[in-house]
Amino acid sequence: MFTANNLWILIAAVLVFIMHLGFASLESGFVRKKNTVNILFKNSMIIAIGLITYCIVGFNLMYPGYNEGGFFGFAGFGLSMPEGAAGAIEYADGSYTYWADFIFQAMFAATGATIVSGAVAERMKLNSFLVFTLVFVAISYPITGMWKWGAGWLDALGFYDFAGSTVVHSVGGWAALACIIVLGARKGKYTSKGIQAIPGHSMPLATLGVFMLWFGWFGFNGGSVLSADPVAVSLVFVTTSLAAAGGAIGAFFTSWYMFKSHDLSMVLNGILGGLVGITAGADVMSPTSAIMIGTIAGIIIPLSVVFFDRTLKLDDPVGATSVHLVCGIWGTLAVGIFGSLASFAQIINQLIGIAAVGAFTFVFAFVLIYILKITIGIRVDEEEEIIGLDLAEHDMQAYHEQEKGFAFAVE
Amino acid sequence: MFTANNLWILIAAVLVFIMHLGFASLESGFVRKKNTVNILFKNSMIIAIGLITYCIVGFNLMYPGYNEGGFFGFAGFGLSMPEGAAGAIEYADGSYTYWADFIFQAMFAATGATIVSGAVAERMKLNSFLVFTLVFVAISYPITGMWKWGAGWLDALGFYDFAGSTVVHSVGGWAALACIIVLGARKGKYTSKGIQAIPGHSMPLATLGVFMLWFGWFGFNGGSVLSADPVAVSLVFVTTSLAAAGGAIGAFFTSWYMFKSHDLSMVLNGILGGLVGITAGADVMSPTSAIMIGTIAGIIIPLSVVFFDRTLKLDDPVGATSVHLVCGIWGTLAVGIFGSLASFAQIINQLIGIAAVGAFTFVFAFVLIYILKITIGIRVDEEEEIIGLDLAEHDMQAYHEQEKGFAFAVE
Amino acid sequence: MFTANNLWILIAAVLVFIMHLGFASLESGFVRKKNTVNILFKNSMIIAIGLITYCIVGFNLMYPGYNEGGFFGFAGFGLSMPEGAAGAIEYADGSYTYWADFIFQAMFAATGATIVSGAVAERMKLNSFLVFTLVFVAISYPITGMWKWGAGWLDALGFYDFAGSTVVHSVGGWAALACIIVLGARKGKYTSKGIQAIPGHSMPLATLGVFMLWFGWFGFNGGSVLSADPVAVSLVFVTTSLAAAGGAIGAFFTSWYMFKSHDLSMVLNGILGGLVGITAGADVMSPTSAIMIGTIAGIIIPLSVVFFDRTLKLDDPVGATSVHLVCGIWGTLAVGIFGSLASFAQIINQLIGIAAVGAFTFVFAFVLIYILKITIGIRVDEEEEIIGLDLAEHDMQAYHEQEKGFAFAVE
Repeated sequence: MFTANNLWILIAAVLVFIMHLGFASLESGFVRKKNTVNILFKNSMIIAIGLITYCIVGFNLMYPGYNEGGFFGFAGFGLSMPEGAAGAIEYADGSYTYWADFIFQAMFAATGATIVSGAVAERMKLNSFLVFTLVFVAISYPITGMWKWGAGWLDALGFYDFAGSTVVHSVGGWAALACIIVLGARKGKYTSKGIQAIPGHSMPLATLGVFMLWFGWFGFNGGSVLSADPVAVSLVFVTTSLAAAGGAIGAFFTSWYMFKSHDLSMVLNGILGGLVGITAGADVMSPTSAIMIGTIAGIIIPLSVVFFDRTLKLDDPVGATSVHLVCGIWGTLAVGIFGSLASFAQIINQLIGIAAVGAFTFVFAFVLIYILKITIGIRVDEEEEIIGLDLAEHDMQAYHEQEKGFAFAVE
Repeated sequence: MFTANNLWILIAAVLVFIMHLGFASLESGFVRKKNTVNILFKNSMIIAIGLITYCIVGFNLMYPGYNEGGFFGFAGFGLSMPEGAAGAIEYADGSYTYWADFIFQAMFAATGATIVSGAVAERMKLNSFLVFTLVFVAISYPITGMWKWGAGWLDALGFYDFAGSTVVHSVGGWAALACIIVLGARKGKYTSKGIQAIPGHSMPLATLGVFMLWFGWFGFNGGSVLSADPVAVSLVFVTTSLAAAGGAIGAFFTSWYMFKSHDLSMVLNGILGGLVGITAGADVMSPTSAIMIGTIAGIIIPLSVVFFDRTLKLDDPVGATSVHLVCGIWGTLAVGIFGSLASFAQIINQLIGIAAVGAFTFVFAFVLIYILKITIGIRVDEEEEIIGLDLAEHDMQAYHEQEKGFAFAVE
Repeated sequence: MFTANNLWILIAAVLVFIMHLGFASLESGFVRKKNTVNILFKNSMIIAIGLITYCIVGFNLMYPGYNEGGFFGFAGFGLSMPEGAAGAIEYADGSYTYWADFIFQAMFAATGATIVSGAVAERMKLNSFLVFTLVFVAISYPITGMWKWGAGWLDALGFYDFAGSTVVHSVGGWAALACIIVLGARKGKYTSKGIQAIPGHSMPLATLGVFMLWFGWFGFNGGSVLSADPVAVSLVFVTTSLAAAGGAIGAFFTSWYMFKSHDLSMVLNGILGGLVGITAGADVMSPTSAIMIGTIAGIIIPLSVVFFDRTLKLDDPVGATSVHLVCGIWGTLAVGIFGSLASFAQIINQLIGIAAVGAFTFVFAFVLIYILKITIGIRVDEEEEIIGLDLAEHDMQAYHEQEKGFAFAVE
């Protein structure tokens, strides 16, 4: 039993890991060709920085074992496994080992920063972004995470967030929002002649990314049961899948109505919106509620994308704020509206959680990115932006032609 | 034990899910650049439509719990979980929960429609295709599926189809055949000057797709054991892998002999042919028989592709009829020829199953696509076909160049 | 318990399988466009040849059940499962079935040859390569593998190689080294005007490949526990991940220092170097040691790549020798330096193992490739190399443009 539970947590961690490939593919598909190496580079570094940072600081900040009034606690630097094999097993009442807990949570932690990387794509300096990632994953994500999952004040209050619509997705979304406000839009996006659509360079990459994310979400939500409990995990699989399907359907009809075309990027983001939306309550919903939550999330996506782009004039190349922030809020609220926890009191609790985590994260991210702006700078030169970050920061191109023979042609 | 069994069914469902990415990649690799968004869009919608349709209608049509003479039964709309956690567990004699059963079967259901999407690529109207998918997954697939897996008349007869060479693959293949007959070939394919090869636009995408499909097939076949029984699941893994390997070898030599070149698309389809071929009897074959079944499937592939293309002049851009229909028939027959069930009586049973399922599915699909043809129309305009479905139906391109600066160049 | 153990070995085998997609993506990303079909074709055939060869010969050569002085043994051709289900279960003291053992080991076997395929890319004849693969996987890999994992003389000596830094990775690396020495560099690589960098054609494919390899490595290392033991498997997951992360960090700083740019290919190979480095001792390292081993591997990568390329003038298009040979040696040595086995005596044992396996493999591979050179030839014509192996050997192109209508334009 313990072996089966632990095995599932580990397999779930592997599935969450592959979400990083999903984000890398999705984001690189949605950016221009000339910024592709940059986004791949960022995503390769984020998982590395995220794992090591969470090992050194984050894990003990998120699960400190005690805390000051439910707001803050820190159990020291580095991992400290309970002594011996017995200690590892007795950890967590014998549901999984200390190591399994760490690796599963560490895979989650890095996703927060990944959400940001898509929003700031095509114009942010690489080094500033990596510093942002490091500090954000080390400090901000674990503190608000503790409030709920580390037995903090939001948990005591009755705030419910099963697998992280708020704790992970909206946290990433708030940070993304703060960053794009401070960073500004890409050159040429909002001009005197109007708003310019800047299509991504590869729809196959974007689609691959979304399927990989859905694939990984079985681990993200399914693993959040924190055991291999047959009824709970299998219900979570059903609600997660149906919400994703609903998201596709919702986005399909809404974008058809709005744009009179079948917009693949909207359907892809609709699937992600459905997944983010079900994440807070995947274990307490019926199949019908899951379809509704997902469908509403899918309807929200095109509306939100247009709202951010045209009304607020906030430039988010991949739609991260719509997917992770707006649908994260929606999913968290939905716990109070649908399913076995639905009640007015629960809605209030959910709103408190949304607001508290949002306020902390937004302010933290805003201050951090602002400090980076006035110190090392956060934005590449105009010339670098024009030639693309791949040549400017990496001296590489994502695709080489080399058609003629030995092909030293490209340079 | 129950936990381990249920966990395996769930993990198998995740693996079958990723086959949808496999189909999306394979099919988009095998079509022209100008129709890539369309095929990605279709495959994203198929999984969504498939899951929701199977939830509302299909599951209760395929596993009705009773049936009229083994031919038809329906347990009502929507999911109806046995009451309480105990009910979920007692379901299926405690091998897996109700939810696990649903999600595993739902992932299968959508594959039937996916097979069709490749065959009708580059010329079929999106909306017609989606309606076809909806009706086909809702009604046709579950009815013939019930005949075997829902304790219907073919099951009573002794027809054997372990994981669906007939029930899933040839069903998809028959539907694809009906559709391409009614739909007709792509413009420029069969001309007065001869038959035109229309190569796919991306071999890396196609190869990625085949590896993803093989990866997912471990869940497709391995999960069909319907428990984590160590001997059965591990034998299935061995036979499945060896048949895929045999398919590659068979196609390698046959295509070399036929075309005097090393044709990657034939080897890729050979792998898939081997996988389809072993699916009906993966649990009753020795390793040697698995290699032979796979190798014969691999030999069949280039012969069948040429037969459909040159003799029958039926235009199937991805070779879906050869892979899923022809190798599906071969694999079903092979159960009577190789392995522990081999006997003349079994061959007869297999032939009856192949013919019955084939006849029902082909007629259903033919009538359905014909009705769609004379009502909403199934084929895009000639002009739309020339400019490509991506611009015609989606107003998007799969790849944007945008080489120069801010690049609003493409439009 | 047996069910859970066996299930994990099977799932680990599936994860190792997907590493073949990882290699295919990585290698195709790092070669030029004109040689892409060739590398995809090779990697599709390697897994097929590897599985069938290992079934017929390799498994019984690697795990013969007896051996002559620890150097050689052979249990006969083909698989011979213990009689009946009971026999399958009693195999291996009831940790996993005979079939599970075979499929897990077979997935490993093919990786050795895959490592070679990247190093010899863009210039080696397809048929010669396939013959090399067949003989190498059938004979060389299993013999040295037996020395350690088949209870051979290195195992008796106390040589430690948990999941194969030496037995798998450096074996592939030595073979790659022998092949590139005999084969020579690509035309135009080392000229009178200096050394020419030949960048790969697709960084997204390369990145996808590395993430897939990391994903699969959870099965490669985690499955090598040979049970689902909760503490051991979860520790292995932690050390494997942290070493990969360390590899990225090490390569990030070293390549920045060396080249003054953020070189994506170095970071990607750094991740792989970290993974190869931890493989020998993933079960005996602390998190801190894992980070150090990985970081050192990441530092080694750019140094080694430059050493092979500029000092030795050995042309390895994907850096396979640096990743698998050099980091394989480093990881094997690290078992004597870090972790619970660290001692001077262990370092000596590790050196003996490295030297013995290296000497046998290098000589075997060198003789084999040399025989192929003087018989059927190993190198394509100069003209074929110029037009690319895709057209020369496959009569295909990896990417078709076909922009205009029905597009028979490319030829």
